Amino acid sequence: MNSYKKLQQSIKSSGNILCVGLDSDIKKIPSIFSKDLSGLLEFNKTVIEATRDLAAAYKINFAFYEQYGAKGFDALQKTFEMLPQSAFSIADAKRGDIGNTSAAYARSVFNELGADSITVNPYMGLDSLDPFFEFSEKIIFVLALTSNGGSFDFQKMMCDGTELYKHVIDKTYAKYNHQQMGYVVGATHPEEIAEVRALASESILLLPGVGAQGADVSAVMNANQNGLAMINVSRDIIYPQSEGDFAENVWQKALHYSEKMKFIL
Amino acid sequence: MNSYKKLQQSIKSSGNILCVGLDSDIKKIPSIFSKDLSGLLEFNKTVIEATRDLAAAYKINFAFYEQYGAKGFDALQKTFEMLPQSAFSIADAKRGDIGNTSAAYARSVFNELGADSITVNPYMGLDSLDPFFEFSEKIIFVLALTSNGGSFDFQKMMCDGTELYKHVIDKTYAKYNHQQMGYVVGATHPEEIAEVRALASESILLLPGVGAQGADVSAVMNANQNGLAMINVSRDIIYPQSEGDFAENVWQKALHYSEKMKFIL
Repeated sequence: MNSYKKLQQSIKSSGNILCVGLDSDIKKIPSIFSKDLSGLLEFNKTVIEATRDLAAAYKINFAFYEQYGAKGFDALQKTFEMLPQSAFSIADAKRGDIGNTSAAYARSVFNELGADSITVNPYMGLDSLDPFFEFSEKIIFVLALTSNGGSFDFQKMMCDGTELYKHVIDKTYAKYNHQQMGYVVGATHPEEIAEVRALASESILLLPGVGAQGADVSAVMNANQNGLAMINVSRDIIYPQSEGDFAENVWQKALHYSEKMKFIL
Repeated sequence: MNSYKKLQQSIKSSGNILCVGLDSDIKKIPSIFSKDLSGLLEFNKTVIEATRDLAAAYKINFAFYEQYGAKGFDALQKTFEMLPQSAFSIADAKRGDIGNTSAAYARSVFNELGADSITVNPYMGLDSLDPFFEFSEKIIFVLALTSNGGSFDFQKMMCDGTELYKHVIDKTYAKYNHQQMGYVVGATHPEEIAEVRALASESILLLPGVGAQGADVSAVMNANQNGLAMINVSRDIIYPQSEGDFAENVWQKALHYSEKMKFIL
């Protein structure tokens, strides 16, 4: 199915724009799960089951699986297979390379893993992004302004009178189909989210940084101005610090965020 | 072993700065190999055996393995295991993300795969690079000016009076240990290689773009001014277009390049 339509349907069905980030780490999962990759997969299954009626999307962070080598990549593939058919999926892989290499990354993520979308890095330029956009049914989230402190090092540098990340947006928004055009903007930058929304009104925003990274949800919701978007929460949902039943605690945390992220499409 | 010393020893032993790029693709390997991952591994083994006395280093392009999913990542791991102990290895992965995620990528590449070095993308800023440099025995190749046409889109944009890629070099060269400090500079930009060498005299340069991408080896050798460097050739060595014995043809191509890249350390 076309990923843009799938995202719309998923948001209509959940009634919110919560994205649950599966940054799953053997060292952090509760002791009810075995401390190995089968425990990690059980953990993912439990988190997905607990949140499937609340979340609009799931974001899978490749690094957390690759850190276990080939067996970790197998767990990554199994995690994609575990997602509900109707849930929108984001391959959070931050890929980008010269053309024939980007094409191979795109085949990995879209053909092998079946992801609906991917995060990509624009530093190497538009020809490094083209092979991803050639998958015309998929949404491509280009890194614009990220949630970390290092976003000030280069992304906010003034280049020809405006910040680098705005040049990234201008050039990509002018070139690519808007139903594929996503941007990653840190939820830690609400003022800039509003500016990005003004520059690229039809784009789809992926807004990480809520929860462990401390961004304020209502400021983010206001800044987004009803555009198509997802707000990602990872650690604060999947590692709830409360006593009692793990699945129940995950559900409670997801409910808490989903109510702050209500969205009528 | 410390990667900087390993690279020096490997260059001393080969007498040149040739890096062979294992961009291995089932669709492109000769028909003497089976068209599957075991054929791909046989192909890699043949290329490595044919070039081990000539090459100073091997660069493994992750995308070409990830395109086959979890089984491809397993072939990636097996390819690292196949490299001669003395050969310097480059994980060409172009990674980079927020701190805890970059740390997981670093564990993947250094602990699980045992690579001597990695290519990383600076767009997210210095805090996204720190976790790689924390592996203090390893060399980190930061993308500066890449070999593709898209390098003009952002990397060569003028920011505060100088090109973006020079800001990347200035900020990283000022912060990190020079025995770990590598840069990727496209061999297609010989004038800029000389400028990078002047800006960051002690850094280690990874220079791709020779062969299929058309860069001129002698111009690159001159521009590098005897600094520690490697020149990568991928497709033109591993897919020789000549008749006859495959291993012999790969050796001939590698010999051709190694003689143009002679280097006394």
